[in-house]
Amino acid sequence: MANSKYAYVRNFELPDPLLPGTFMLFRLDGHSFHRFSDQHEFAKPNDIRALELMDHAAKDVMTEYPDIVLAFGESDEFSFLLRKSTTLYNRRESKIVSTLTSLFTSSYVLNWPKYFPNTPLKYPPSFDGRIVLYPEEKHIRDYFAWRQADTHINNLYNTTFWALIQQGGQTATEAHATLRGTFSKEKHEILFSRFGINYNQLDARYRKGSVLFREEIPSDDLVATGTTVTESEEVLEDPEVGGSITSTQGEKRKGKSKKSKQKQTRIVLDHCDIIKDEFWDTRRWILSE
Amino acid sequence: MANSKYAYVRNFELPDPLLPGTFMLFRLDGHSFHRFSDQHEFAKPNDIRALELMDHAAKDVMTEYPDIVLAFGESDEFSFLLRKSTTLYNRRESKIVSTLTSLFTSSYVLNWPKYFPNTPLKYPPSFDGRIVLYPEEKHIRDYFAWRQADTHINNLYNTTFWALIQQGGQTATEAHATLRGTFSKEKHEILFSRFGINYNQLDARYRKGSVLFREEIPSDDLVATGTTVTESEEVLEDPEVGGSITSTQGEKRKGKSKKSKQKQTRIVLDHCDIIKDEFWDTRRWILSE
Amino acid sequence: MANSKYAYVRNFELPDPLLPGTFMLFRLDGHSFHRFSDQHEFAKPNDIRALELMDHAAKDVMTEYPDIVLAFGESDEFSFLLRKSTTLYNRRESKIVSTLTSLFTSSYVLNWPKYFPNTPLKYPPSFDGRIVLYPEEKHIRDYFAWRQADTHINNLYNTTFWALIQQGGQTATEAHATLRGTFSKEKHEILFSRFGINYNQLDARYRKGSVLFREEIPSDDLVATGTTVTESEEVLEDPEVGGSITSTQGEKRKGKSKKSKQKQTRIVLDHCDIIKDEFWDTRRWILSE
Amino acid sequence: MANSKYAYVRNFELPDPLLPGTFMLFRLDGHSFHRFSDQHEFAKPNDIRALELMDHAAKDVMTEYPDIVLAFGESDEFSFLLRKSTTLYNRRESKIVSTLTSLFTSSYVLNWPKYFPNTPLKYPPSFDGRIVLYPEEKHIRDYFAWRQADTHINNLYNTTFWALIQQGGQTATEAHATLRGTFSKEKHEILFSRFGINYNQLDARYRKGSVLFREEIPSDDLVATGTTVTESEEVLEDPEVGGSITSTQGEKRKGKSKKSKQKQTRIVLDHCDIIKDEFWDTRRWILSE
Repeated sequence: MANSKYAYVRNFELPDPLLPGTFMLFRLDGHSFHRFSDQHEFAKPNDIRALELMDHAAKDVMTEYPDIVLAFGESDEFSFLLRKSTTLYNRRESKIVSTLTSLFTSSYVLNWPKYFPNTPLKYPPSFDGRIVLYPEEKHIRDYFAWRQADTHINNLYNTTFWALIQQGGQTATEAHATLRGTFSKEKHEILFSRFGINYNQLDARYRKGSVLFREEIPSDDLVATGTTVTESEEVLEDPEVGGSITSTQGEKRKGKSKKSKQKQTRIVLDHCDIIKDEFWDTRRWILSE
Repeated sequence: MANSKYAYVRNFELPDPLLPGTFMLFRLDGHSFHRFSDQHEFAKPNDIRALELMDHAAKDVMTEYPDIVLAFGESDEFSFLLRKSTTLYNRRESKIVSTLTSLFTSSYVLNWPKYFPNTPLKYPPSFDGRIVLYPEEKHIRDYFAWRQADTHINNLYNTTFWALIQQGGQTATEAHATLRGTFSKEKHEILFSRFGINYNQLDARYRKGSVLFREEIPSDDLVATGTTVTESEEVLEDPEVGGSITSTQGEKRKGKSKKSKQKQTRIVLDHCDIIKDEFWDTRRWILSE
Repeated sequence: MANSKYAYVRNFELPDPLLPGTFMLFRLDGHSFHRFSDQHEFAKPNDIRALELMDHAAKDVMTEYPDIVLAFGESDEFSFLLRKSTTLYNRRESKIVSTLTSLFTSSYVLNWPKYFPNTPLKYPPSFDGRIVLYPEEKHIRDYFAWRQADTHINNLYNTTFWALIQQGGQTATEAHATLRGTFSKEKHEILFSRFGINYNQLDARYRKGSVLFREEIPSDDLVATGTTVTESEEVLEDPEVGGSITSTQGEKRKGKSKKSKQKQTRIVLDHCDIIKDEFWDTRRWILSE
Repeated sequence: MANSKYAYVRNFELPDPLLPGTFMLFRLDGHSFHRFSDQHEFAKPNDIRALELMDHAAKDVMTEYPDIVLAFGESDEFSFLLRKSTTLYNRRESKIVSTLTSLFTSSYVLNWPKYFPNTPLKYPPSFDGRIVLYPEEKHIRDYFAWRQADTHINNLYNTTFWALIQQGGQTATEAHATLRGTFSKEKHEILFSRFGINYNQLDARYRKGSVLFREEIPSDDLVATGTTVTESEEVLEDPEVGGSITSTQGEKRKGKSKKSKQKQTRIVLDHCDIIKDEFWDTRRWILSE
């Protein structure tokens, strides 16, 4: 029983390389997460456990794939930026899309019990992914600005909507009616005057989303055990896996053979502004090669 | 902060529809499963727990996507056939590839503890996926024949290889040397004369791989609780989810509005021959519309 | 001045193979031919010279590319069917599309003076082309039926429209108004009762379009000089190039090495029905391999 | 006879938009021009008539498509740069590739008799075309440097090769043998010492290829009839079509509605260096938007 007579079916596999020299933006979204969040009783308007689990899974993906230089998450979506010179899997589209989506999903399900210890998964959640290519830095800046502006708009709406319901006693229909046609300023006003909520003092995570990027570890830190982080930043730690310090040296992938001394980096989680210039001006390595 | 000025970045998303009227073959492979199986101490040459977990995940994918009419698995790979008229996600390639890979992964990780109760996952496993289009039934027949012939060749080699090591006391290097250049017949002979193993009497699962297909439920069965299955077939049951009886009526997906009475089907697991005509001749609905 | 340092730019060329085992339908349309036909004073509703020139160019393309098994033309468009097993240019899409479009254009311009001896070209006409893949014979049958039905619909409209203007003295606006909402039967009636035109007796070329296919040359014909053609068929002849008898033996293209005796074929032009079964039933070699 | 039942075949046409925001490089090559140049007795090593005809056809393409900002030709190939913001034909690949190839071919055949008055075309010549996308200006610079370096290398070889044959009395085999392994310097030496040819004084057209670009017409020139061109530049003129002055205003294409005053430009032919910075530094509009 030779299988050589059937092997011709491989000829139907067509190549799908992505254009070289362009930024790859890998975007991942929860599949039917409206239902999923209902079934698993996510808190409204934001469930801190669910958001932290998303961040955890995203960080696992970044740790495994050093060519991802930035990630941004909100709600049930995450965007990952791969540097434009990446040769990951020879830039084959299906391979990259499926593998990254798979690893994110895997980490999400594996780590679920740490964040939802009392809520077993009722069924396996899934995500969809896709890659969009961007030729210029400006496009990348604008892509992330688009997502963070979206985070703000959605969160302001949802925060006001759920305040009207949870604290104001409105039905969902009434709350939607109350908000119809309102501008940003009016939502702020409703929150403050009716519910005593100062929107700008809410957790930055909800207002700004999650930003993950790499940072060089100063050589001092590598000696000392403790790492200093700025107030608004958290270094993600997975107590079971051990410290989150990773090195691109650890990566072994086809075509990578640089064994020489590389700077160690760690992945930092922040909830900072990525629309204004400052974030980018102080981290030029994200967009440059 | 309007995000309309950034929304132009959506224009970089390009359409990726797959040619209509062709069979879609979705193929999924474990990512670095050599390492994964070592780290999680899979039994050699076959780990029944790992294979049953693969079948479980594959069945979950088939249950969710009624347009999958056949699946075949061996080792750390699974192939799924979508009928050629499927309009799943408007036949968008990335959407289909990523979602199916994600759901499979999710089910694999979620159900891991059922099959490996004493072996916690050390890290999140991942899979890669891709779609190949085939225009003709003959190609589909040959594709599945190719995979099942591959199953046989690999399993015969591995069974003999591990017998030489586990029972014959050879090192891996010695075992490879013993097998170098041997034909199928000689491997059968080694197994039988030296280790008393009749290869053809080994579990069909190992020799033939796993075949998953849908079968109409006779109306009698729907009344009676018990379903009759043939000797070599098992109806997959997930004790927690309840019976495995599913109906395409339950499926709600965009564009599907047939509310009329449809025949109920169940997904059957078998380890039968899919190279010869009989399997196909007696299940014409698999390739026809 | 070595150019090796620049040669990396070749890496941006991406492969574009078309799915194997599917029929290729190459379709070509005149670019801005409304203007072109005005500027070169084409007769209305049909200009026999322009149609014969299209046929001539199409035949040149078929002669050069033996994998084209059928062609159909009307107005300023032509469709070419390549057999599904063709490996022309390794099935690279841009190569095939551009080369076929180029050769058609080249022949059209080169042969223009033969059909329009008194009308020099005012500017270079151009065509656009594209390939559509079809997996099944039924699709090919329906594609050609679609084009021939279109020929009929357009020609009936145009014939009536121009009769109203040229013989009925109407303006274009009036003629359009006369025809608005009319069915096929009413157009026949207008033609017959007002202008004495029996539509069904008009030249089949106008009503049915042009069909080009290969036909085996009976061995007798190869001996005798004269070839017998049926009443409604014309064997295209280019008086300058000599007889139109061609042989696939003459074709030398990469991957073709069959030097053995092949049957000689000639390209036949007909204006027959290709919607009904008869055309296809009596020429089974067109769709089969 | 309605054709609506067949119209479903249109669903098999798949979209093929090219990534926005990237430079399009359209490259065109003669198809089997080795044979074509033999059959039409092109002079060796360079046939001035054939090169001027190529330039003529390229200029016709640029005149028709204002989004082409630069072109470079050598031998039987031509490269055209479309600006990265072009929305020509909605960036559909087949449409652009086929239309540009067609127009070039059409102009080539139409204008053949002007350049080869005594050599009628024996058969229709054809070209193939393809598009390569480049994200960055650097890639475009390097692409054109690659082609011009290639021009130099080929021309130096061919010039020496044909001198050895035509003046040195060698056979082709002997000439190849003489040149095997020689460096650029040695070819210069052969040319000078044996044939008295100073390579650097040969026509720049042969050594540098043909460069076509747009240049703004100073308003003075629009009043005066004469246009001043620098020594090494020629303004292409087609005596029959009239002056070569064109305006992007004249362009009427879907989506273009700018009727406002635009600067008039003309297409300039030059044989200058495009590897060094000067060409680009003094014509910044070519790469910028």
